[in-house]
Amino acid sequence: MIVDHPTLLQEFSERAELIEQLLSIGAALSSSFDLGEILNLILSKSREITCSDAGSLYLIDQSSQPASLVFKVAQNASRPGSSFQEFTIPMTPQSLAGYVALTGQSLNLPDAYHLSAEVPYQLDRSFDRSIGYRTRSVLVLPMQNQDQETIGVLQLINRKVCPEAIVSAENALEVTQPYSEWEERVVRSLASQAAISIERNQLQESIENLFEGFVRASVQIIEARDPCTSGHSERVAALTVRLCEEVTTITAGPLRSLHFNSRQIQEVRYAALLHDFGKVGVPEAILVKQKKLYPDQLEIIRHRFALARRSLELECAQTKFRYLIEHPSHVHDSSSTGCSHCDYLVQQEQQLEAAIAEIQEHWQLLLDANEPRILSEEPLARLQALTQLTYRDVDGELQPLISESELLQLLVQRGNLNAQERLVIESHVTHTYEFLKQIPWTRHLQNVPLIAYGHHEKLDGSGYPLQLKEPEIPIQAQMMAVSDIYDALTASDRPYKRSLAVTKALNILHQESAHNKINRELVQLFEQRQVFAVLGHTIESSDLEKI
Amino acid sequence: MIVDHPTLLQEFSERAELIEQLLSIGAALSSSFDLGEILNLILSKSREITCSDAGSLYLIDQSSQPASLVFKVAQNASRPGSSFQEFTIPMTPQSLAGYVALTGQSLNLPDAYHLSAEVPYQLDRSFDRSIGYRTRSVLVLPMQNQDQETIGVLQLINRKVCPEAIVSAENALEVTQPYSEWEERVVRSLASQAAISIERNQLQESIENLFEGFVRASVQIIEARDPCTSGHSERVAALTVRLCEEVTTITAGPLRSLHFNSRQIQEVRYAALLHDFGKVGVPEAILVKQKKLYPDQLEIIRHRFALARRSLELECAQTKFRYLIEHPSHVHDSSSTGCSHCDYLVQQEQQLEAAIAEIQEHWQLLLDANEPRILSEEPLARLQALTQLTYRDVDGELQPLISESELLQLLVQRGNLNAQERLVIESHVTHTYEFLKQIPWTRHLQNVPLIAYGHHEKLDGSGYPLQLKEPEIPIQAQMMAVSDIYDALTASDRPYKRSLAVTKALNILHQESAHNKINRELVQLFEQRQVFAVLGHTIESSDLEKI
Repeated sequence: MIVDHPTLLQEFSERAELIEQLLSIGAALSSSFDLGEILNLILSKSREITCSDAGSLYLIDQSSQPASLVFKVAQNASRPGSSFQEFTIPMTPQSLAGYVALTGQSLNLPDAYHLSAEVPYQLDRSFDRSIGYRTRSVLVLPMQNQDQETIGVLQLINRKVCPEAIVSAENALEVTQPYSEWEERVVRSLASQAAISIERNQLQESIENLFEGFVRASVQIIEARDPCTSGHSERVAALTVRLCEEVTTITAGPLRSLHFNSRQIQEVRYAALLHDFGKVGVPEAILVKQKKLYPDQLEIIRHRFALARRSLELECAQTKFRYLIEHPSHVHDSSSTGCSHCDYLVQQEQQLEAAIAEIQEHWQLLLDANEPRILSEEPLARLQALTQLTYRDVDGELQPLISESELLQLLVQRGNLNAQERLVIESHVTHTYEFLKQIPWTRHLQNVPLIAYGHHEKLDGSGYPLQLKEPEIPIQAQMMAVSDIYDALTASDRPYKRSLAVTKALNILHQESAHNKINRELVQLFEQRQVFAVLGHTIESSDLEKI
Repeated sequence: MIVDHPTLLQEFSERAELIEQLLSIGAALSSSFDLGEILNLILSKSREITCSDAGSLYLIDQSSQPASLVFKVAQNASRPGSSFQEFTIPMTPQSLAGYVALTGQSLNLPDAYHLSAEVPYQLDRSFDRSIGYRTRSVLVLPMQNQDQETIGVLQLINRKVCPEAIVSAENALEVTQPYSEWEERVVRSLASQAAISIERNQLQESIENLFEGFVRASVQIIEARDPCTSGHSERVAALTVRLCEEVTTITAGPLRSLHFNSRQIQEVRYAALLHDFGKVGVPEAILVKQKKLYPDQLEIIRHRFALARRSLELECAQTKFRYLIEHPSHVHDSSSTGCSHCDYLVQQEQQLEAAIAEIQEHWQLLLDANEPRILSEEPLARLQALTQLTYRDVDGELQPLISESELLQLLVQRGNLNAQERLVIESHVTHTYEFLKQIPWTRHLQNVPLIAYGHHEKLDGSGYPLQLKEPEIPIQAQMMAVSDIYDALTASDRPYKRSLAVTKALNILHQESAHNKINRELVQLFEQRQVFAVLGHTIESSDLEKI
């Protein structure tokens, strides 16, 4: 057997190198999460292995009707500067790529300018013409997944006789040669490995996408229970993510050591999206309560007042009747004056009128106190007096006109919730935490529960539910607190509360930070970097709007 | 240069084969979703490529403290029958695998029985002794991911001089040889590709797990709004999945053409888990309503009745007073009898008493009608009469004692919800669908929204919300309907309704199918295959329990 030893040895060692190269390409293909990276890698490495001057890569778009080919990557060593834009071609057997995509067969063409008249495909030479090129040998391969479904097409152009050769329209026939069958098999196999990797990435993306979509849809459906908070979670997430990004760019001051990579930002984002999820555990009645008393509660008190009034009328009528029985000598004469009997009856009626007026006045006082305003001293004292008033109830028992608990409700100094209701509202943070804690977060999302748990804590320990102080509150929760307050102040969907202009909201944030409630540096950064711009807010326009 | 041509040629062609083999291994590694498959594949292919007689594979368990090595796979060509059980060894440098795991360095040992005294590791010969084997050459390689983190260790044993050699304790020194450096590099690279693939799978599993966990936790938190439905969705999912599995095994009858693969079962499972998700859009008041009127509504009516009674008393007192004014000659004498004036007054009082008694009777009637029972004819007519009764309301206006809408509420023939409330409850199906529709389901879960949408449709078109008929209702929704009804009947957490014994529930399912409401074949299958067993129900025990 005659062999050219040095060449054989050379090829032998080249193949050993090739094996390791192929292995490293395989590892790179499987480990990449980036589609563009995979596409460029498979094209450049296939070109390198086969000494191809140029190449391109198409992916099949199954979502279009009919399916089409998307031209994704092009490389050309002889025309390194040629620009490229993604475009779509129909998936028909007339083009080389279309034929391969449809049939799953490879095409190994020694000269693409001289094709048999019997084949359906032809090379589109317009591209060559536009860049003054001469395509000669072409290797077109399907990129097939493990089920042998073609998901893309890899096209290698002009197999050079040596890696250094430069192909021009003039020398193409001299410096290129056909692709070997062996090259075809190796690259086809590599292309399929790329296809599998692409599909793995798509699968993973689709599940991540599914998770993301499910989270957002559930946040939305839960927020819908309280029309006042619609979109709040998404806005807090957007603000907090931007704040994270801004914090990461800081190089001086107390925040300079803080850095968030994309995974950590993702973690904060989920914590923010889900920070109010536990509100699903707060009864709607409390969630949407607008005044100090619930509407039905007020209606019952209204009836109680009516019953009291009717009881007074009844007592007056009964008293007058009894008086007449006891003073039978009295002859009522409308013309008579100075009659002591008549005086008594009139006096009774006047007393009744005065009592009714008093009840009416109390009712007005109560209606007034029912509004979620801050109460002044005087009505407070008068409200207290209300509990001293009694009436004869449904069962004939003497009862106070308003109960102790109703009074407490009306005496609420700020807002419209009593201590117990406030606790129920505040419990949403614990509900959120309990909910988030039972979810099997991936490693990079493990802190979601703790971050969300801390969003109502205050630096001075006056927050809830754990009364944590500054060092114990995760910095991400501190960021979320700033965003949460900002959105609560500026959102236009809260009832009985006009949304504030950006500058006013910022002033309140500064006050809160001055009182050591929220992080001063974060508030400053929030203002300086105009973090609120992610919501489309600007200081100018917003201020103008409110003037 | 002197080379042995035939051997070189032979090796040359073997290497070409090897390249293709490596490529196909790479593709297989990237495309597999099964850990066991990947582990067996990498071990057997590495052995094949290197002509290794035996081998084993360890994965690092980072969850244990400290991290340990789990012995996952073992293969031995000379001892094909040797049994194997997974076990854990500490990750210390004393073992070969532990050393490689800790250092990330390969070990290529010509003879593992003769190791330098300076190295920390030694071969544990007890395994050899137990099976009468002689380990000689050993190649121990780290399986590293793209970040060069070691996640496992691949150990190849006894590189044979030819693939056919059989290694025994006696001939080990003759039929084995050391591993070449080249083999070490190729297999190490392949092992890393396996590591990447394993990590990809773990990542994917962890996200799937995250999605699953999130779905289940949100179902749970939403179900918690209505204590009566706790665990219902999980049970319906379990029943429906089992029904799918049973249907798939059927080879005769109308259901024989139905087959569900694991992905389709997953789809049904998510539809079942989420079928009541839209209940979050139903106000709690309706969700947990127990009687026909809401408690506050009843309390307001009670006050209205009291007001009516006091008004009657007032009118009576006023009439009596007026009478005395108009009949001033009357001298009341308790001893007098037959006095027409006194008769009149007494008559007034008697009329009042009768009227009060009537009101009291009406109140009792109303309390009775308020219970969620089926009403008989007579109280119905009397209830109707109630709206004719008027009283002088809070503002002095004449009003009916109960409003038209309250009457309608009390006239509800079945259960405790009026038509409007029933619509609101029924709207949960549409809420569920609207919610599910906006989620970007993966390809294999695309029918989740439609399946869930159909779970309250009836075969005869009498269901809701679309009044679909049998052919239009997805078969998965028909399965879910059977499970849903079964669980509603047998669940022990519904108020005012004792849970039914399994046989009674099955009887009701049969009745429903006889009335062409639910699928007859599915109900039969549900009974015959004892699908309810997934809930721990058995016909006997459950029946005994209820006796």
